[in-house]
Amino acid sequence: MKVHDISMTISEEMQVYKNKIEKKPTIEVASTFEKDGVYESKLSFNLHTGTHMDFPLHIFKDGKTSDTLDLSRLIRKVKVFDLSDLDMEIDEKDLVKLDIQPDDFVLLKTKNSQTDIFDFHFVFINEKAAQYLSSKGIAGVGVDALGVERDQKGHPTHHLLMNHDIIIIEGLRLKDIPEGEYLMIALPIKIKHVDALPLSIILIEET
Amino acid sequence: MKVHDISMTISEEMQVYKNKIEKKPTIEVASTFEKDGVYESKLSFNLHTGTHMDFPLHIFKDGKTSDTLDLSRLIRKVKVFDLSDLDMEIDEKDLVKLDIQPDDFVLLKTKNSQTDIFDFHFVFINEKAAQYLSSKGIAGVGVDALGVERDQKGHPTHHLLMNHDIIIIEGLRLKDIPEGEYLMIALPIKIKHVDALPLSIILIEET
Repeated sequence: MKVHDISMTISEEMQVYKNKIEKKPTIEVASTFEKDGVYESKLSFNLHTGTHMDFPLHIFKDGKTSDTLDLSRLIRKVKVFDLSDLDMEIDEKDLVKLDIQPDDFVLLKTKNSQTDIFDFHFVFINEKAAQYLSSKGIAGVGVDALGVERDQKGHPTHHLLMNHDIIIIEGLRLKDIPEGEYLMIALPIKIKHVDALPLSIILIEET
Repeated sequence: MKVHDISMTISEEMQVYKNKIEKKPTIEVASTFEKDGVYESKLSFNLHTGTHMDFPLHIFKDGKTSDTLDLSRLIRKVKVFDLSDLDMEIDEKDLVKLDIQPDDFVLLKTKNSQTDIFDFHFVFINEKAAQYLSSKGIAGVGVDALGVERDQKGHPTHHLLMNHDIIIIEGLRLKDIPEGEYLMIALPIKIKHVDALPLSIILIEET
């Protein structure tokens, strides 16, 4: 079996949403050899940094939090689709061509995976495409942008997906992943009662 | 197959090493619906919080960092041993009875797993036991305390294990895990050039 790591690495230099300075993670020295006999670091980061999953509280007042996490929904077969030819957004017409079935977990590879620099014109899932995915009854969707949508007033893509209990994973790195089926193991760092969880994800390819 | 989650959940109330206030994680509101249209949290935490793996930089000046992470060493068979009858420390004499072989990855379950409150007398691996594990040539060791040792001057247990390139995982929750062999999948949140990485770990039991 071959294991593909599709998570981002966190650093102070990494891409963050719209390059906002307040979204940059910081790493401080917490303990030193001189003072404490050991060396320890402290990380401060927005939970939507790097590869992560959203919970409804991110979008809905009183929405569900990470306390509702169900690991079994993150350890399963997934389908990777290659949409690298798209330039701006993923539309319904791009999805109808794909073999998307009820309960599928789909990972959408786009040109976003080709760069580690934040692209203000990243490819996103538009409202119509979100409507299509919802109507299909998929179980989850993963994207290689830090947002599943951008600049859509009222966040309709998040709304549609979350209203249909579709898991949203953002910040994947799919450059080296060929289209196909994989076993996904996505393990979040569990944090109590929050709007997003950092994820480490591998795809296992049977060879 | 049955999946056991053996990681801690991070919260502001969780146990931290010696209950030190500066080691408590904090969760702040980073974005609000009123101001930003979405809700986002920011987590600040010492990287030795909860379930994590140590890298040599934690103990050795100029020691190796998380940049040397090799995922393949964390996805493998492990042996869980039940040492819940021990009161204070794990000694060589407790380990010689066990079937520990070269290249084994061993997880040591103790009474530490029975509480979520920090115990100043937590069971740890003493220097002789660390010497034994090193001489056996094991690949890694996981413990259910926040430290693989406590109050040993000069951190000999860390030194011995790290000098033999033995992976150290701390902060496991093993209460519900019967002794036996499992497939471990331990996925760290990758952070560049640090002394420890937060881990999410599952044990898979073939049924």
